Amino acid sequence: MVAGLKRIGILTGGGDCPGLNAVIRGVAKAAMSGGLEVVGIEDGYLGLIENRMRDLTRLDVSGILTRGGTILGSCNKANPAKYSLPDGAGGWTVRDVRDQVVRNYALAGLDAVVVIGGDGTMSGAAELAARGLNIVGVPKTIDNDLCSTEITFGHDTAVATAADALDKVHTTASSHHRVMVVELMGRYAGWLALHAGVATGADVILIPEIPFHVDKVADYCVKRSRGGRGFTIISVGEGAAPAGHDRFVDRVIDNSPDPIRLGGVGKFVAENVEKLTGLDSRVSVLGHIQRGGTPTAHDRLLATRFAYHAYELLTAGRFGRLVVQRDGKIDSVPLDQVANKVRTVPLDYPLIAAARAFGTCFGE
Amino acid sequence: MVAGLKRIGILTGGGDCPGLNAVIRGVAKAAMSGGLEVVGIEDGYLGLIENRMRDLTRLDVSGILTRGGTILGSCNKANPAKYSLPDGAGGWTVRDVRDQVVRNYALAGLDAVVVIGGDGTMSGAAELAARGLNIVGVPKTIDNDLCSTEITFGHDTAVATAADALDKVHTTASSHHRVMVVELMGRYAGWLALHAGVATGADVILIPEIPFHVDKVADYCVKRSRGGRGFTIISVGEGAAPAGHDRFVDRVIDNSPDPIRLGGVGKFVAENVEKLTGLDSRVSVLGHIQRGGTPTAHDRLLATRFAYHAYELLTAGRFGRLVVQRDGKIDSVPLDQVANKVRTVPLDYPLIAAARAFGTCFGE
Amino acid sequence: MVAGLKRIGILTGGGDCPGLNAVIRGVAKAAMSGGLEVVGIEDGYLGLIENRMRDLTRLDVSGILTRGGTILGSCNKANPAKYSLPDGAGGWTVRDVRDQVVRNYALAGLDAVVVIGGDGTMSGAAELAARGLNIVGVPKTIDNDLCSTEITFGHDTAVATAADALDKVHTTASSHHRVMVVELMGRYAGWLALHAGVATGADVILIPEIPFHVDKVADYCVKRSRGGRGFTIISVGEGAAPAGHDRFVDRVIDNSPDPIRLGGVGKFVAENVEKLTGLDSRVSVLGHIQRGGTPTAHDRLLATRFAYHAYELLTAGRFGRLVVQRDGKIDSVPLDQVANKVRTVPLDYPLIAAARAFGTCFGE
Amino acid sequence: MVAGLKRIGILTGGGDCPGLNAVIRGVAKAAMSGGLEVVGIEDGYLGLIENRMRDLTRLDVSGILTRGGTILGSCNKANPAKYSLPDGAGGWTVRDVRDQVVRNYALAGLDAVVVIGGDGTMSGAAELAARGLNIVGVPKTIDNDLCSTEITFGHDTAVATAADALDKVHTTASSHHRVMVVELMGRYAGWLALHAGVATGADVILIPEIPFHVDKVADYCVKRSRGGRGFTIISVGEGAAPAGHDRFVDRVIDNSPDPIRLGGVGKFVAENVEKLTGLDSRVSVLGHIQRGGTPTAHDRLLATRFAYHAYELLTAGRFGRLVVQRDGKIDSVPLDQVANKVRTVPLDYPLIAAARAFGTCFGE
Repeated sequence: MVAGLKRIGILTGGGDCPGLNAVIRGVAKAAMSGGLEVVGIEDGYLGLIENRMRDLTRLDVSGILTRGGTILGSCNKANPAKYSLPDGAGGWTVRDVRDQVVRNYALAGLDAVVVIGGDGTMSGAAELAARGLNIVGVPKTIDNDLCSTEITFGHDTAVATAADALDKVHTTASSHHRVMVVELMGRYAGWLALHAGVATGADVILIPEIPFHVDKVADYCVKRSRGGRGFTIISVGEGAAPAGHDRFVDRVIDNSPDPIRLGGVGKFVAENVEKLTGLDSRVSVLGHIQRGGTPTAHDRLLATRFAYHAYELLTAGRFGRLVVQRDGKIDSVPLDQVANKVRTVPLDYPLIAAARAFGTCFGE
Repeated sequence: MVAGLKRIGILTGGGDCPGLNAVIRGVAKAAMSGGLEVVGIEDGYLGLIENRMRDLTRLDVSGILTRGGTILGSCNKANPAKYSLPDGAGGWTVRDVRDQVVRNYALAGLDAVVVIGGDGTMSGAAELAARGLNIVGVPKTIDNDLCSTEITFGHDTAVATAADALDKVHTTASSHHRVMVVELMGRYAGWLALHAGVATGADVILIPEIPFHVDKVADYCVKRSRGGRGFTIISVGEGAAPAGHDRFVDRVIDNSPDPIRLGGVGKFVAENVEKLTGLDSRVSVLGHIQRGGTPTAHDRLLATRFAYHAYELLTAGRFGRLVVQRDGKIDSVPLDQVANKVRTVPLDYPLIAAARAFGTCFGE
Repeated sequence: MVAGLKRIGILTGGGDCPGLNAVIRGVAKAAMSGGLEVVGIEDGYLGLIENRMRDLTRLDVSGILTRGGTILGSCNKANPAKYSLPDGAGGWTVRDVRDQVVRNYALAGLDAVVVIGGDGTMSGAAELAARGLNIVGVPKTIDNDLCSTEITFGHDTAVATAADALDKVHTTASSHHRVMVVELMGRYAGWLALHAGVATGADVILIPEIPFHVDKVADYCVKRSRGGRGFTIISVGEGAAPAGHDRFVDRVIDNSPDPIRLGGVGKFVAENVEKLTGLDSRVSVLGHIQRGGTPTAHDRLLATRFAYHAYELLTAGRFGRLVVQRDGKIDSVPLDQVANKVRTVPLDYPLIAAARAFGTCFGE
Repeated sequence: MVAGLKRIGILTGGGDCPGLNAVIRGVAKAAMSGGLEVVGIEDGYLGLIENRMRDLTRLDVSGILTRGGTILGSCNKANPAKYSLPDGAGGWTVRDVRDQVVRNYALAGLDAVVVIGGDGTMSGAAELAARGLNIVGVPKTIDNDLCSTEITFGHDTAVATAADALDKVHTTASSHHRVMVVELMGRYAGWLALHAGVATGADVILIPEIPFHVDKVADYCVKRSRGGRGFTIISVGEGAAPAGHDRFVDRVIDNSPDPIRLGGVGKFVAENVEKLTGLDSRVSVLGHIQRGGTPTAHDRLLATRFAYHAYELLTAGRFGRLVVQRDGKIDSVPLDQVANKVRTVPLDYPLIAAARAFGTCFGE
């Protein structure tokens, strides 16, 4: 036990992710057994800013291992450096409230905080660490696109949910000779659409890393249809886009509204394939379903390992670090080394090669 | 065994529905054990029109009980009275090919056909029965909106899939103080959105039978948010519409495109609630996922009971009848009594009263 | 609202059953919305005897719809007419504490109690009703063997769990040419083993209602093995027994311990089939897994309907009644008409006929 | 493509394991795309010995990715060095038929074989490789106890199945104040009972690596009961044993039958805890359910990666090697370096430390 460590806080920031409660439970149970007091900070950084915290008991963290969501609440937008406040005149003003956070941390008697979150949350954590807060970070993303770690909890559950959806449309597609598009999360990286697609034997996989040609996709559907397998399953990440399309510009070429921004890339693919081929096409948009639900056993174990290593870092006084997995092992890196860039799927990723060998179309 | 019954056909028509294979298997296994030959007719009425049939063996129907889809294929659009054919000039022509069907039925040596399908398929079956074909019908719909039977297989599985999705967004909604909309199937009847909504404790349930006011929904979300439960789960059937909205007209009032027709009612609700309340709102559109997947044990049993009763009707020579459930018991009605109208949720359905008593909002 | 009805209690008795919480929630939410106070009675009749009750709030019953178990706790053995107490001399004495229950009911200011439980619990309820307590009963059993109602919540979930297990062993059995026995609950009635067996296409189904001959089962396994399908799946209810075997006698014939009582009927069947046939045989004993877990959507809906009807009976002042399903509809019967006998599977049950037609072996 | 590689075989040996079909499919699809002929060898080494092989087509391996079992069949006992044959006198004789296997391999025109199996199967593969067969091995075990690789497919699915069972009994245990024992597979290593136990927050975890004291377990149950949490969940691996107990000796001490060998360690623990504490105890024995079912998405991905790497080894002419995962990466090791020993859970495994920190009892 590090000298002086008596009272720790836990907060969860960013979007929802299966396994958050498993990490909270793991850190809290280990800390309580180690004689520490544990404080739950509500709604991410908001709790530190607005001084909303509560002491956690064993009962609070009992039975939460299997639950989705976070018992502490979260907040997508709060960042202590850019906190939005009513300006008193009906509008909003943005302030840097990091000093306030430092004060509230001290007032609450905290000796350290475990911060669980994604890229944005960790940037905030690094800044607070620079102001003297003792912080240990635990990375979280269903998208698997954090560059500091090979894998985080939540991704496995999201892949399982997406694969379940792809499995379900498979039978309909084959019975009804249809093109079935399932749009999955993944704005910047295609891990989820790729993993769920390969795990279910999807015929077409479209991901942000590989710009696609919708006519190539249509040709492929026709080829399958003629070959007697009159159906095609398409797994598409929400960030996938046709070659030459800039997803971050509002309108394209002819001044008409961009259909991809308007209706999503899944609908775009389904409508264009149907138009080009005459084949019946349908789309499902899973949305936030992928962020919820009971975590898989795999994610509960990973979350538990991350939580326990966070506790070990705490008790070793190794603050300012982020728990990661490297070469299959749990480890940690400095919080401020977390590059603020996305880990996309490398084009030489073996599962891409495997899928290509199986005949999967990437729309190239 | 009815005199002369030696060879029967089976066909599946209409949209996909979990349990189709269970019915095929049930009819085929009973018929084979009873000494009958069993012919699988491919792709619904298309197989009868185009003479695509194959003899089924025990092996063909082994192991299919748990599979979604239909091993026989289906076809949404084929109707022997209105069959589309290439006109030789690049276009299409529509013909009445019922005589051709009668001929093919005779050529194939069929003594009877079990027709599994929904409303449209049963209309076709009644017409063919009037031409002398020996037909037993088995009703099928995930929407539960056939007026001739209390329940059909497929609905329970669709409710389970929809409930699973609603359960999953529940944790995210509560952790992230969000409005979560899940759009479910049900163009004309709200059974699916109602059953899945009640089964998961959805806060708002919007169904075609009860025109909604989006401002009432928004007020309800705000009330919940102020009451400390900063989230709302909305289960909406695809056929639900605001009061005064005619879902079957392309454009409304001001000549602008109808947003509900364009993006779906789920997106319409999420966008308007967000606009009216400022609360973060998200939408999932399950789509055909609800039609696929392994049938629940409940649906496998129901499909098996329907199948066995169809076989009993066959062997009793009671043709021209549709298997149904009445007062909790398996029974049959004349095929031609199948009114061509939808069974909507009655407004005095006990689960609506129950949901209202629990405080659920129907947008009224 | 009935005059004077202001405060109601809820208790759950007997073994675990998925959907108990859904009933508690349904009754409590409806009652609270109707302006009633709701008291949770702990651990079945024990709470009434030992005066352990607590007021329930909306928060207490929020989020419990999807959870197995009962938030009120239960007790298998407590019966107010035969309550075991320490006798002060290190042993136990049994007393009739019904007067005490009547007193505690009055002291707690209860105007009525909703009693959720099985046969034993309802016998107790009828006796208390005879002493003047206002009671509405809600039947509960995973075994589906209550004679007063066609179906209760919990059975569908138990069938789903059992079917999932049978589905899982199916692939192993067929790959490894094995006999796979799955022992399911059902001491007196075979509903669970029959329903799960038919829903998964089990080859052999052994239930208490049909005494089996283990050599017939063995012959059937050999026949399948020779026929090229080198595997057999056996669904056996725990109460199934060989013809002539009295399950309720400790030792049989030769004074050696009864292997069925000792190791269970599943193990008995597996060992004897292996001995008689030389075929590799394995057994799984699901046990209490069948009583737990998230209720299926189907059971949540049924539980909710039962709960709402219980509330309607309360407010109508129709006490001394048990909610039931008759002819597919929710209804009620007098509590004291609940015959204390088991509803076994009738031998002319259509699913038995169907299974026989499919070639399923019942060990006859 | 290696010169001369034109025709490859695939076989699966040993016990069932979710993901076998995913490997078969992966190897076959990649090989077919690479222009190779693919031969399915039936029932493990039996197919090589008895010359039972069949050419596989794309159709044969289509749609099998999600299925448990193996389309090729397997055989637990066949070993070319010790093949049992009828001796013509009603008994059996054991012969070394490796020469016959070499002959059949040549006769079938095979250039290489992918062997998928566990320890025993790989020993056989190494011996056949020594006789000149071109072999690539793919390791398989739900137990995760192969010493050559960090992980294999199948384990994740088995953990998921076991965790699901433990989750289910959790609600019953807590509602009914019971001790619930779930016996899981793992004869020599405790990975499954440990992983499933930690993933579900089991209170007691008993594994072969840590001999337990049943009185310590009983004391722990009593402590929990007195502490207000009147229930205990016990995850026990089938190979766990009390300190001093030799699981491989038939009878102990007093000449009475060994209860652990007779009824299993799960039943032993439940009965002794009940005897020592008076607490109601129940046991579930999952058995082969853990080996079956649809593989998790995680296992399908891992199986696919293993399969693709096996194909890469084939085409690179790198025979006599076993695909493995090392430091989180797919790699290979020589087949003959596969030590014939079990990879048990190391006592310093971080999840054991984590579980201890959470208060989990290991019976020590």
